[in-house]
Amino acid sequence: MSELEKFFYPRSVVVIGASRKPGHVGNVIAANFAKKFKGDVYFVNPKGGELFGKPLYKSIDEIPADEIDMAVIVVPARIVPAVMRELPKKKVKAVVVISGGFAEVGRKDLQDEIVRIAREHGMRIIGPNCIGVYVPESGVDTIFLPDEKLKRPGDGHTAFITQSGAFGASFLDYIAHMGRGISKFISFGNAADVNEVDLLDYLKDDEKTRVIAAYLEGFRDGRGFFEAAKEATKKKPVIVIKANRNPAGAKAAKSHTAALATDDAVVDGMFKQARVIRAITRDEAYDYILAFELMNRPVKGKRVQVVTNGGGAGVMTCDAIGDYGLELAELSEETYKKLRETFPDFYVVGNPVDITGSARSQDYIVALKHVIPDPNNDAIILIVLPSVPALDLEELKKGLEEEIIPLMKEYKKPIFAVSMGGEQAEDLKKRLISKGIPTYDEPDKAVRALSTYINYRLNKEERFL
Amino acid sequence: MSELEKFFYPRSVVVIGASRKPGHVGNVIAANFAKKFKGDVYFVNPKGGELFGKPLYKSIDEIPADEIDMAVIVVPARIVPAVMRELPKKKVKAVVVISGGFAEVGRKDLQDEIVRIAREHGMRIIGPNCIGVYVPESGVDTIFLPDEKLKRPGDGHTAFITQSGAFGASFLDYIAHMGRGISKFISFGNAADVNEVDLLDYLKDDEKTRVIAAYLEGFRDGRGFFEAAKEATKKKPVIVIKANRNPAGAKAAKSHTAALATDDAVVDGMFKQARVIRAITRDEAYDYILAFELMNRPVKGKRVQVVTNGGGAGVMTCDAIGDYGLELAELSEETYKKLRETFPDFYVVGNPVDITGSARSQDYIVALKHVIPDPNNDAIILIVLPSVPALDLEELKKGLEEEIIPLMKEYKKPIFAVSMGGEQAEDLKKRLISKGIPTYDEPDKAVRALSTYINYRLNKEERFL
Repeated sequence: MSELEKFFYPRSVVVIGASRKPGHVGNVIAANFAKKFKGDVYFVNPKGGELFGKPLYKSIDEIPADEIDMAVIVVPARIVPAVMRELPKKKVKAVVVISGGFAEVGRKDLQDEIVRIAREHGMRIIGPNCIGVYVPESGVDTIFLPDEKLKRPGDGHTAFITQSGAFGASFLDYIAHMGRGISKFISFGNAADVNEVDLLDYLKDDEKTRVIAAYLEGFRDGRGFFEAAKEATKKKPVIVIKANRNPAGAKAAKSHTAALATDDAVVDGMFKQARVIRAITRDEAYDYILAFELMNRPVKGKRVQVVTNGGGAGVMTCDAIGDYGLELAELSEETYKKLRETFPDFYVVGNPVDITGSARSQDYIVALKHVIPDPNNDAIILIVLPSVPALDLEELKKGLEEEIIPLMKEYKKPIFAVSMGGEQAEDLKKRLISKGIPTYDEPDKAVRALSTYINYRLNKEERFL
Repeated sequence: MSELEKFFYPRSVVVIGASRKPGHVGNVIAANFAKKFKGDVYFVNPKGGELFGKPLYKSIDEIPADEIDMAVIVVPARIVPAVMRELPKKKVKAVVVISGGFAEVGRKDLQDEIVRIAREHGMRIIGPNCIGVYVPESGVDTIFLPDEKLKRPGDGHTAFITQSGAFGASFLDYIAHMGRGISKFISFGNAADVNEVDLLDYLKDDEKTRVIAAYLEGFRDGRGFFEAAKEATKKKPVIVIKANRNPAGAKAAKSHTAALATDDAVVDGMFKQARVIRAITRDEAYDYILAFELMNRPVKGKRVQVVTNGGGAGVMTCDAIGDYGLELAELSEETYKKLRETFPDFYVVGNPVDITGSARSQDYIVALKHVIPDPNNDAIILIVLPSVPALDLEELKKGLEEEIIPLMKEYKKPIFAVSMGGEQAEDLKKRLISKGIPTYDEPDKAVRALSTYINYRLNKEERFL
């Protein structure tokens, strides 16, 4: 078992610096554990008293347990070493230090000291100066922002690790807002001990995690990251927002995480070699996460067939197919004939298959039924502009679910969808996502994600040949 | 007065092919006018009867009016020429032909015929094969999709013209969903007569319209477009999604609007010379529209000061400042001193000014009050991660509104904002937009829009020197 396991699935936790003052860091964290944690939780505060119906122990010694897996420390930096020296009494192995006041303000000495203590007693540290760990499955939640301020996503399949606590928090909030989940969230702050390399190593073998995503501004150990990433991407996609990309960004990064400026072309080259997927923006990362959470099957090639009810959206999609290095599929003669026989003259049968503003849900189903088995394509982009008059959205959803998704699985062809417009389009998008079809609100995003998906899969399959 | 005025502000309208069948094109359009149009409206259908409490005239002749400004035609293509020959009896000058069945299905002859008739009688045509015109201000609405299918945006300041009806419809739906408005919407279909050049010419002088946006797949008259755009961009920004950008897109465009493939580098060059702002995606166009709707003031230069409460978001913003050709401003010594005196040690005073996760609303106000008058910068990016513990969003909104926006106007410095996270961030974004601050949900979008805004303004001011 990995040493890190105890950070994510501890049987027991002690919060040191648990506070009775509403809204305070030690209060919010204590509340999180009191409400959600599935194991035993102990609170320590020298003032004593009670908190959320549990005793506030004045010291570690008072706790009536011989062994505690994890400690969460929220006391002032100068006291942290003393607190950490007490932890071996309870055989603590995992320590999350939320408190700031270490290397980030010039107290590298204090930081080195807590690392020394940890090494001496076989403990691992996440932090200091971080928001720590959130694992919906086990109820570990060291995030000191209450639910009203920061909505927690539910249980999911993406792990997110971040060098920036605030960006991480906003990403969690966004993921929750989009109705998606998370397997594990780790803000590792100053990374005095556990860093991105350790986390990659752990997460690559974590069965809950299908996708690993990260926000990084620099690498403490570039070679280590490269090796860990190379291994991780053999098992699952690794999507990284690597900020601090140019001199302007470097100036800001220096005062933020003290990350060094790196030649960005070197980062690009390293990512490429390690098969790491790079995202520049938050939305780009999200779009890729969505694709890889929902799709995880071998693909055969890059030939894309488009089915649309909007000509303009079809053109934009084909433009994007060109932009992102995919290819336009050609319909086989047989498929062409079948569609031509079925559809009215003014439907365009080609690539795209354009069932126009007259589209009915059944037209989509018919088109896809003929197109999916066609050996001349490897993937489908399905475009729905929900506002056309004859389209019954309920019927479309039902048809896709009952007839098309099974076909997509049978023929191992990814379908990525575009649902473009206003509120109805948003609803349809959510519904299609819930049925396992990566769906986006405009063509560019869908094609970019499909291209990234196909390239990752083709690379992966190549490596295992 | 422009000939086109009658399409947007007719005193009277006749819908020819008004239908009593619910959901039919001629029914939805008649309903639109019955409900919303502010002038006189007449319905014609050879079957006679009544519709929405008004008589259905069996022919144009029966209508008890000598003059009707605009006709909307929804009868089958083969009958359109005969119908058009009747229109001069009522001195109709503007004709929207919704019906398809012309050049797009090989009936160029029929299309030429209606143009001949129009020319002979001094009429102008929008269409055929289009969804026509929507003007919230006057109640003109020829869109045959009912409100439940396609939400109409309210009155606003952006005109949108489109070669693709379906894309146009989905764009309208999106604009409405985002809570924004439109001044005029024109889907011109086959552009037998009125085309993008005429519309640019009209809209550049339209006082309601502050921003012109367009979706195009090709140019019927490239030189004409160039000349019209060059004139229009002297008065207001012109934002164009020009699809059909590469061989894959061209293949699709050929069967959609029969637009020819153009060397995309030529299009880029032409846009640059005419100062047209090119957008590749729907979202990019929307981001620019938002910026230009809200901001319309001279700018002095490209030096950007960032104020943030998230270090990571600050780094991403500075990266983007580098990407989009803007410059990082340096704080003047005076501003530096003032901020250093006010703020706690752990706030970073530089670029970015990082008031960290401890940020209170008052910190933002103080930072901006010192930063805006600083002569060392030309624009501000304001980043808010709303989930931090001490930030009172209501107070922040109030402070920005009462103290910062007046300052921004006084010093003529654009402030673009980023509100990043989940639901609270979305709410804050909407609120800031309603107060005139272009606000985006991640740094890349805000900086891209700011860069586009600054470049357009600097170009414009240069031309008038």
